Amino acid sequence: MDSYLIQVNGHGDHAPMLDVHLKSTGNTISAGKVKGRKPRWAVRASEMSKKTFNPVRAIVDSMKVEPNPKKAMISLSLGDPTVFGNLPTNDEVTRAVKEVLDSGQCNGYAPSVGYQSCREAVAAYYNCPEAPLKAQDVILTSGCSQAIELALAVLANPGQNILVPRPGFSLYKTLALSMGIEVKLYNLLPEKAWEIDLEHLESLVDEKTACLIVNNPSNPCGSVFSKSHLQEILAVASRQCVPILADEIYGDMVFADCKYEPIATLSTNVPILSCGGLAKRWLVPGWRMGWILIHDRRDIFGNEIRDGLLRLSQRILGPCTIVQGALERILHRTPPEFYHNTLSILKSNADLCYAALSAIPGLQPVRPAGAMYLMCFEYPNFFRVVITVPEEMILEACSRIQEFCEMHYQGAEGAQDLECDK
Amino acid sequence: MDSYLIQVNGHGDHAPMLDVHLKSTGNTISAGKVKGRKPRWAVRASEMSKKTFNPVRAIVDSMKVEPNPKKAMISLSLGDPTVFGNLPTNDEVTRAVKEVLDSGQCNGYAPSVGYQSCREAVAAYYNCPEAPLKAQDVILTSGCSQAIELALAVLANPGQNILVPRPGFSLYKTLALSMGIEVKLYNLLPEKAWEIDLEHLESLVDEKTACLIVNNPSNPCGSVFSKSHLQEILAVASRQCVPILADEIYGDMVFADCKYEPIATLSTNVPILSCGGLAKRWLVPGWRMGWILIHDRRDIFGNEIRDGLLRLSQRILGPCTIVQGALERILHRTPPEFYHNTLSILKSNADLCYAALSAIPGLQPVRPAGAMYLMCFEYPNFFRVVITVPEEMILEACSRIQEFCEMHYQGAEGAQDLECDK
Repeated sequence: MDSYLIQVNGHGDHAPMLDVHLKSTGNTISAGKVKGRKPRWAVRASEMSKKTFNPVRAIVDSMKVEPNPKKAMISLSLGDPTVFGNLPTNDEVTRAVKEVLDSGQCNGYAPSVGYQSCREAVAAYYNCPEAPLKAQDVILTSGCSQAIELALAVLANPGQNILVPRPGFSLYKTLALSMGIEVKLYNLLPEKAWEIDLEHLESLVDEKTACLIVNNPSNPCGSVFSKSHLQEILAVASRQCVPILADEIYGDMVFADCKYEPIATLSTNVPILSCGGLAKRWLVPGWRMGWILIHDRRDIFGNEIRDGLLRLSQRILGPCTIVQGALERILHRTPPEFYHNTLSILKSNADLCYAALSAIPGLQPVRPAGAMYLMCFEYPNFFRVVITVPEEMILEACSRIQEFCEMHYQGAEGAQDLECDK
Repeated sequence: MDSYLIQVNGHGDHAPMLDVHLKSTGNTISAGKVKGRKPRWAVRASEMSKKTFNPVRAIVDSMKVEPNPKKAMISLSLGDPTVFGNLPTNDEVTRAVKEVLDSGQCNGYAPSVGYQSCREAVAAYYNCPEAPLKAQDVILTSGCSQAIELALAVLANPGQNILVPRPGFSLYKTLALSMGIEVKLYNLLPEKAWEIDLEHLESLVDEKTACLIVNNPSNPCGSVFSKSHLQEILAVASRQCVPILADEIYGDMVFADCKYEPIATLSTNVPILSCGGLAKRWLVPGWRMGWILIHDRRDIFGNEIRDGLLRLSQRILGPCTIVQGALERILHRTPPEFYHNTLSILKSNADLCYAALSAIPGLQPVRPAGAMYLMCFEYPNFFRVVITVPEEMILEACSRIQEFCEMHYQGAEGAQDLECDK
């Protein structure tokens, strides 16, 4: 019978089970592979890769929809405003990048947190008396996803927990679980326009809570928190001494009757990492240009969190330099009409969609106040409708949803308790 | 005296030490913060952020050199060919991106592993009969740094080890340590043109070895392994059943008298993740366009590693889409003269630098065969010279080094044992 030393690569419980016969020579056998014995290939994917699961991307990236020959597919799933061609970015945005290309000046490595001039440009753009920002408060990242990743990675250790909205953007959970960070879901209240259930939120805080994620304007709810609600949230964070990770990628994307308040402008003491980027407002999500704005007026993060973010940024060296180089021009030259036009299309689609879905038995849409989404509930699970879809397609989609609901709706008694994110 | 519940955020040993007086109510006190008691701010950077240390970036990003009024600084430190303007990228490369911008077709999200068409283009470009590649074997990443990060993250668990060249590129260690992976350094032999000490390499393999990093052509050595040496390395990997992470970002960047062999073309069984990108050969490191080529002809990685890479890629969603969209045109349209011209400048600089440094007491440069570097040794530590610097600056730099060495050289007896990477 042959003797083998088992090659365990990954975790042992997946390794082939073999009889192991070793002539002990008394010392190093267990520490190294033994010459003359034959290891076997057993390459296993890491635990971290197995813990990493992005439900949205997993669906979108591997979606193979059997086409219905009678009905063209209308995708309401992905928060990508560019899909249908009805929401192009502004010419000034692309022109800015072309100028950078022509200059040949932005092809080399930038500092891993971004060019100093670009950090200055972002700081100047978002600076205000209530929440002043300087270049050193800005860290440029490869999209808002990496901004969130770095913010979580610097604030939380494995075994700690973070407070995450329910319903909420799935990436928070994806990133947290991949890093061994526990996710505690706090409820949003559909009957209060998706405000946070503050009591529930506060009840979840414990000594292992590393941060509170506040997403405003909200994906997937399309809601926009009022100033007073944001102050209530800040009061919880302040009372419990929990820093805030503010996902403000939809910042400024609010409809006319509503005002967006960056949460940091309302706080005097809570340390806040605000994550944003070009993706949504400038309609270029593929360009992967994001940022973290560090708000820390009481020096609670201090150098430790700043240094930590710097170190973490050095792993993959920041976002594409030709977009970085264009950032200042993009922020300054994009005409205000562009933003207004985007919001007016979104608002019009939101109204259309809201009206159409309101008429459907079993659905109770919540009128969105910003971002690019509308949420429906009353059915056991929520569903999200992306409102960047062209008008005629939204109407067609709503009429298909209506047809489906009329066929299947069983009345209020058929509905179970609200449940989501399972 | 006031009673406090200590807010431990991060690890307890850094929390302020306070007397804790709790009135036990019998159940949930230890699980949550207690109302009426005042937590304190104590936000700590995570362990991971503290374990992350990129020595090159830490130096480069925070370098504040007091200017010497008599001598302009000549930087020989950063492997960025764009710094001096003498090595611009090709017009076709920038034109390709401008065409993508004009099309408006690549502003949205791509699949997290990259556009299918771009994966096909990279696969077709590197495909060869000895190491066939299809689109599904290609994963596009945010620079070669992220390619290496994903490859390590999928292959190794915390507590495992990886085999890393000494001297070698510092990022391997940075990434590994941040993930809790041990680094075992195998020696390169300067007297054998920086070939691997195969015996030393094999002696380091143990049951916890997750992969072997082979960097060819080498940063920092400027060496290029022969076909027969690569076969010897593969024999070790095959015998020990250790997969290879091949850092081939300098692939094809070899001087005329030398041939670059992608390691995967020489293997029949060893599973290999080859990391590459546009950075060096196309002279656009800031664009952050990298890739992993999966070579797995015996299906040893299998779906598990492929799925793992896919999942990990979903954390930050891949590289900038306007560069992705240009990839096929960049690969096909860049004229061969561009590559030849780059190599001829590098070769000429390498020869100049080699000749100048050879004449200096105490230095023994090794003539580079590729990449963008030249290594000097005999002094207790090695040092690396970047040879992308314009000719006149290289000569000036060498003459300054000569001046310094002549002032400080103490003869062979002054030298200690070779030591590096400490």
